[in-house]
Amino acid sequence: MAGSLGLAPLQRSLGHTFTDQGLLQAALTHRSYGTPHNERLEFIGDGLLNSIVALQLYQRFPHLPEGDLSRLRANLVRQDTLHQLALKLDLGRYLLLGEGELKSGGHQRPSILADALEALFGATYLDAGFEAVVGVVTTLFAPLIAAIDPAKPMKDPKTRLQEWLQARRKPLPTYVMSGTEGDAHVQEFIVACEIQACNLTTQGRGTSRRAAEQQAAEAALRALEK
Amino acid sequence: MAGSLGLAPLQRSLGHTFTDQGLLQAALTHRSYGTPHNERLEFIGDGLLNSIVALQLYQRFPHLPEGDLSRLRANLVRQDTLHQLALKLDLGRYLLLGEGELKSGGHQRPSILADALEALFGATYLDAGFEAVVGVVTTLFAPLIAAIDPAKPMKDPKTRLQEWLQARRKPLPTYVMSGTEGDAHVQEFIVACEIQACNLTTQGRGTSRRAAEQQAAEAALRALEK
Repeated sequence: MAGSLGLAPLQRSLGHTFTDQGLLQAALTHRSYGTPHNERLEFIGDGLLNSIVALQLYQRFPHLPEGDLSRLRANLVRQDTLHQLALKLDLGRYLLLGEGELKSGGHQRPSILADALEALFGATYLDAGFEAVVGVVTTLFAPLIAAIDPAKPMKDPKTRLQEWLQARRKPLPTYVMSGTEGDAHVQEFIVACEIQACNLTTQGRGTSRRAAEQQAAEAALRALEK
Repeated sequence: MAGSLGLAPLQRSLGHTFTDQGLLQAALTHRSYGTPHNERLEFIGDGLLNSIVALQLYQRFPHLPEGDLSRLRANLVRQDTLHQLALKLDLGRYLLLGEGELKSGGHQRPSILADALEALFGATYLDAGFEAVVGVVTTLFAPLIAAIDPAKPMKDPKTRLQEWLQARRKPLPTYVMSGTEGDAHVQEFIVACEIQACNLTTQGRGTSRRAAEQQAAEAALRALEK
């Protein structure tokens, strides 16, 4: 078990030194190790991360519509991004895991690393308040947000879904109109995105068929990337 | 168009008087009316609401596991709850809507009301910072959170999905095992929840078949209640 002194490099990388080292320990404790573990901290950390990244995107891109901000955020807070950040922090070596998880390589499991990182955000809030979490999130995410080129449009969800499936050698999805709703001037199209190979069907709505398809693809990506 | 004086009762109900009345106006402006409208504010308000409700549930229920906190939050931040709060604030009379929306009763549309309420949270943040939003969210949600009885378990997602469908005279969902993943000690079950009448299939995962079914039902509810 890593002592408090051993956690100094991690706290330096986060840009926050915990007054309550117990909170830091809890954030690094997987439920397989015992209680207090990090699941409740992860719950609040996830919310804080989502809201802080939203605020930073809002400020950085004053002219982007909500849909684009939303897609940029989804990309920044998904497990894969958190996993990469956790690797940079060398978070695996600080985790407390039960024996089963230890043996099966839990220290490297992307979901365990991503969850612990979110728990660190939650613990930072309890230790020192909202602005302290803003500081930690900024330390980690500023380079990623700075690297976003708003002129270069992000790939749309249909394209990303297609690439996700192709990378896994799975057949492409089919989009099926399943209906419309509302009067003519506020008509909404409803489209189903069917991915038989993954036994998944999602639905999207929008004021055009294309918009509904994109939303359905977005929902499918969310389900598949979980 | 409501003048600033006309917005005094709303600000009293929120417990926040805006220094920048332009932010308040923008939060009340639907995109059908013109720009600046409230979609970007809604984006940040949604994140803030989610994180603040998470923090309040975390503090109020020190012993509830993450899954229960998550379900309680989903219930508090869903459109129906926001719509009810917006009605209490009489938010409809303050909204600025384009002519088409006005004629089709946009003032009463639950999604428009819920979105404007979220936009008000975002506007409050920009006007006065995080603690000011905590104040507004607390004003509105404290009675709802106080009314939660942790001893009385919330209905589980499968039950709620069944009730949702029955209320709409639709046939019940079917749950189909679609596979398992992982080694024996970390095995995950994958279950599909199929709702033919709504042309919706969702997926759930869990360490038991029951847990996977509940997660699939939860995903279906999220899709249906959108």
